[in-house]
Amino acid sequence: MDISETLRHRILNRRAGMSLDAEFYNTSEVHALDLDVIFGRHWIYAACDPELPEPGDCVTVEVGSNSILLLRGEDMEVRGFHNVCRHRGARLIDARSTTIGNIVCRYHGWTYDETGKLLFAEHMGAGFDKSCHGLKPVHVRSVSGLLFICLDEAPPADIEYLAQTLTPYIAPHDLANCKVAHVSELVEEGNWKLAMENNRECYHCDGNHPQLTVPLSEFGFGFSPDELDQRRSKDIRTYLETIESEHARWEALGLPSAEVEELSSRVTGFRTMRLPLMGAGESHTLDTRAASGKLLGAFNESRLGGLSVWTQPNSWHHFMSDHIVTFSALPLAPDKTLVRTVWLVHKDAVEGQDYKLDNLINVWMMTNQQDADLVRLAQLGTQEAAYEPGPYSGYTEPHVEKFCEWYIGRLASTLLEPRAHIAAE
Amino acid sequence: MDISETLRHRILNRRAGMSLDAEFYNTSEVHALDLDVIFGRHWIYAACDPELPEPGDCVTVEVGSNSILLLRGEDMEVRGFHNVCRHRGARLIDARSTTIGNIVCRYHGWTYDETGKLLFAEHMGAGFDKSCHGLKPVHVRSVSGLLFICLDEAPPADIEYLAQTLTPYIAPHDLANCKVAHVSELVEEGNWKLAMENNRECYHCDGNHPQLTVPLSEFGFGFSPDELDQRRSKDIRTYLETIESEHARWEALGLPSAEVEELSSRVTGFRTMRLPLMGAGESHTLDTRAASGKLLGAFNESRLGGLSVWTQPNSWHHFMSDHIVTFSALPLAPDKTLVRTVWLVHKDAVEGQDYKLDNLINVWMMTNQQDADLVRLAQLGTQEAAYEPGPYSGYTEPHVEKFCEWYIGRLASTLLEPRAHIAAE
Amino acid sequence: MDISETLRHRILNRRAGMSLDAEFYNTSEVHALDLDVIFGRHWIYAACDPELPEPGDCVTVEVGSNSILLLRGEDMEVRGFHNVCRHRGARLIDARSTTIGNIVCRYHGWTYDETGKLLFAEHMGAGFDKSCHGLKPVHVRSVSGLLFICLDEAPPADIEYLAQTLTPYIAPHDLANCKVAHVSELVEEGNWKLAMENNRECYHCDGNHPQLTVPLSEFGFGFSPDELDQRRSKDIRTYLETIESEHARWEALGLPSAEVEELSSRVTGFRTMRLPLMGAGESHTLDTRAASGKLLGAFNESRLGGLSVWTQPNSWHHFMSDHIVTFSALPLAPDKTLVRTVWLVHKDAVEGQDYKLDNLINVWMMTNQQDADLVRLAQLGTQEAAYEPGPYSGYTEPHVEKFCEWYIGRLASTLLEPRAHIAAE
Repeated sequence: MDISETLRHRILNRRAGMSLDAEFYNTSEVHALDLDVIFGRHWIYAACDPELPEPGDCVTVEVGSNSILLLRGEDMEVRGFHNVCRHRGARLIDARSTTIGNIVCRYHGWTYDETGKLLFAEHMGAGFDKSCHGLKPVHVRSVSGLLFICLDEAPPADIEYLAQTLTPYIAPHDLANCKVAHVSELVEEGNWKLAMENNRECYHCDGNHPQLTVPLSEFGFGFSPDELDQRRSKDIRTYLETIESEHARWEALGLPSAEVEELSSRVTGFRTMRLPLMGAGESHTLDTRAASGKLLGAFNESRLGGLSVWTQPNSWHHFMSDHIVTFSALPLAPDKTLVRTVWLVHKDAVEGQDYKLDNLINVWMMTNQQDADLVRLAQLGTQEAAYEPGPYSGYTEPHVEKFCEWYIGRLASTLLEPRAHIAAE
Repeated sequence: MDISETLRHRILNRRAGMSLDAEFYNTSEVHALDLDVIFGRHWIYAACDPELPEPGDCVTVEVGSNSILLLRGEDMEVRGFHNVCRHRGARLIDARSTTIGNIVCRYHGWTYDETGKLLFAEHMGAGFDKSCHGLKPVHVRSVSGLLFICLDEAPPADIEYLAQTLTPYIAPHDLANCKVAHVSELVEEGNWKLAMENNRECYHCDGNHPQLTVPLSEFGFGFSPDELDQRRSKDIRTYLETIESEHARWEALGLPSAEVEELSSRVTGFRTMRLPLMGAGESHTLDTRAASGKLLGAFNESRLGGLSVWTQPNSWHHFMSDHIVTFSALPLAPDKTLVRTVWLVHKDAVEGQDYKLDNLINVWMMTNQQDADLVRLAQLGTQEAAYEPGPYSGYTEPHVEKFCEWYIGRLASTLLEPRAHIAAE
Repeated sequence: MDISETLRHRILNRRAGMSLDAEFYNTSEVHALDLDVIFGRHWIYAACDPELPEPGDCVTVEVGSNSILLLRGEDMEVRGFHNVCRHRGARLIDARSTTIGNIVCRYHGWTYDETGKLLFAEHMGAGFDKSCHGLKPVHVRSVSGLLFICLDEAPPADIEYLAQTLTPYIAPHDLANCKVAHVSELVEEGNWKLAMENNRECYHCDGNHPQLTVPLSEFGFGFSPDELDQRRSKDIRTYLETIESEHARWEALGLPSAEVEELSSRVTGFRTMRLPLMGAGESHTLDTRAASGKLLGAFNESRLGGLSVWTQPNSWHHFMSDHIVTFSALPLAPDKTLVRTVWLVHKDAVEGQDYKLDNLINVWMMTNQQDADLVRLAQLGTQEAAYEPGPYSGYTEPHVEKFCEWYIGRLASTLLEPRAHIAAE
């Protein structure tokens, strides 16, 4: 798409280490660019296997003005389609999730099979060629049960590197044998990048997340050595030693734990690391113990800390011994973002017996609301004439910087090599 | 108005037989063009006589950003005015319908008579010329009690042909002696053209309108001969014979019944036809019998089927022996349309005695809601990147094609001969 | 900012004595221009002393997309700041009014003192220079307790003339010893200029304000001599004589009362005049008597009429012997305006004892609602194609004309001498 000279200039001259110019957060021009370049040409985290476990199960995901239908076929394959009838363009499936046989358009009854093939279209006459009117497909890639989609015809190839790297981390948590325990959909009143930046640091945790900071250590996400007193220096040393010993223990259990950080170095950026938790060290709960009695996969040890998985541009995930929490951020408007959170437990876990729902979701329900409020304040700020980019802390905000670096880099590469850039990767 | 090169190209190169390009349904540019060219220069169906039966009765109609005031004078003439005070521009009548004496502006009391003449304006001093500050008139044309307005100074002349053609069909139903039994205002979440296209076919009726398809035959609006089995072929033969015999009977009663189809062949496009109804064949009710005991006009036969009247760009009407249902569609936004439905019965019919309101309005209340839902799905579809124009059925959607042909033709003629085109017609 | 040729033409060719062209009331282009030129470069009435009486008290005011924080320091000085953190731009104070110690950003805890100096920013490392990251200041000027702000770096200098002229009128009412009795925030559905124009005349009072016209004389704001009958001529003579005698009496009490009218003759336009009230002549109440038993300042006479103070672009105020009502209008959107009304009584007056709240606020609560409705009708009118500027009455609308003259003049001077114009004044 064409962009203004001002915007082109801002993309090509971003000042490293500083928050983005206000235009990136609140203009319709950047919103359209983000939908085109970022959400239209990259792998987007959309859903996970347990959201559509059986043949005929489907979910729809809104990516900008695209509604994408994900449908599990009889062959257990998940396929993606544009959720638009090829007759007069009506939306086909008008629900977030449901179970269907064939895909039938409510308007005039046009009927498609699970591969998108048009099976039936009444009154179209003898000369009508059904084979030209199948649904338009969308790429789907499962990474150990995390489902990514790409709207581009030629998706970035390095999803393979991401899959290869993350699979050993994720696979032991056995998503395929999980079930959905709870879903929350929260509309945050801020740009999607502010929601992501908020997620990429814990500098704000201490003052804003009284629940989350029970299991999470204040030292897990960086600190400035200049400001440490003796007590804190000692606490940090202890924490760093814990990481070292826990990593050794987890690796011995077959659980890769070391940090892999590829946030801005790849088209399909990501990061992972297994971190110890505080207290009992088992889970993101207020008592730091496992929320569910049925451990995931083949685990018989509940003290596995939390495996964080981040993907660019739009997801983060916490894998623990007893449950998984996955998050996606999807832009709704320049100043509105849908944050979808799904809590997963073992498919055989029984609510009220193996886990209490409140206890399972408490920490992140509260934390999400607190973050939504911060994102709102940040959005309000960017809309003011007095806003100007401010400095990121090199100690507590390096991953925010990586996010911005990746984002600006992706825009810039598109400007420099429009369309050609993807095929080359 | 100036339009973009892209839009000009799309207008001049529309592919016949296919739904319109997405831009026509969801851009502010086309919305503005529609308000200017279609709703600003054509005859728009606005109301009907029984909505303002007595002198001093008035209704207001919103056409884009114009509020039009229709007022019946002491001479029983209905006049139209822009609903704007000539002093500081305040809206004059702030209600959908009311009864007034003179037209008095609430702001500073400026007062106009029923012809729009300024009668009174306090404090304006001796030199003030009231004769230069009358209300701005709007053309009004009654066609047997259906009130059409035109905002253009030189309205299309062929309203006369429409009036001359339709009057013998409509007049026997004697609108002047009807009263309003019910009004419904439904805001559909789709472009006005999607609301009209939905009205111009019954391909969708079978799957979506369980109530409407009780009185309406599935064969009344076309079918593909290629797909008929023996039983349906026989049913169709029977239905076509019924039309023939009923038309002969109705013509003998003085009721013209044959189809007149001028949907895309004239500036003021229209279509009419009298069709038999199913079952008792009397009315659009769930038992197919007349809803009102007081028949209209001089009728003493209730089995008169349904006379359909369609006008471009924005109305449709069903005239039966016992009641009339009139519909108008008015654009509120690119993706919002007001559908106004008015049910009319004989002015002497008494509710609860001659008719039950539920029974009278049931079929179309349900049908309107079902259509609104389909229009919503169609609008959602046009907003997706994957939307592309799809093929209309030559058998069941020819009038949708005529609507699009008329619409694009009207835009094109304006582009080719800006403003001059109207005067010539 | 760049403006379209059409708008430039309309500014430079406004027809005197007529309401403004529609574009001034309902386009985003003019809204942006108004925020830049009018609200961005002039003195804006924002609040009054009793709204933040103690050190640490603060209020926030939204001027377009700017949130301005007004904070009273330990030195009793009121300072203004852009309400935006210098770290990642979050809004600092997220409430209309509150009391704080330091200014602490909720996001990451950055902390500023009452002069805007950055005191504390964790994790920023040794090289970080706090002195470069203070809050951005905004000019604040108190005129006898009325607080004006200016967002421009070089505010119009003639606020001094306004202060010098108005102080003798206002000071005797002793704002510093008042307290807030009630606040109303009303969002009017019209452009801010329509709210101001509505305030600048009482031509509409007779037909719309049954409560306000109890204390206010219909002759207080002009009349056409051409239309007077004998009785009204006599009433007017009586009223004019009353003004003369009351002015003499008030001046003798040390209260300047004569009209000063500088509405369009200065950059910082204003007008003031003390007018007699009807009946008991004491206050804007339904019984025309003082609403509060504790008179303001050193008054021991309650029959002081009403001192009107108007400032361009956005305020009006009524000062009486027993209470003060202040009003500000702030644009929220082309068709939305916040009207804030604050009722003030002596700080020692006790509700229920010295005054009844209902009785105090009744007249203006009703009047504001009535005006909001008129502003809504006026806005609706300007959105119609048929709107055209109409004539102001030379007798009852001269101050509306002055408002428009000032407004257009300010825009024009900016167009002719961009930015330079202010410094010269």
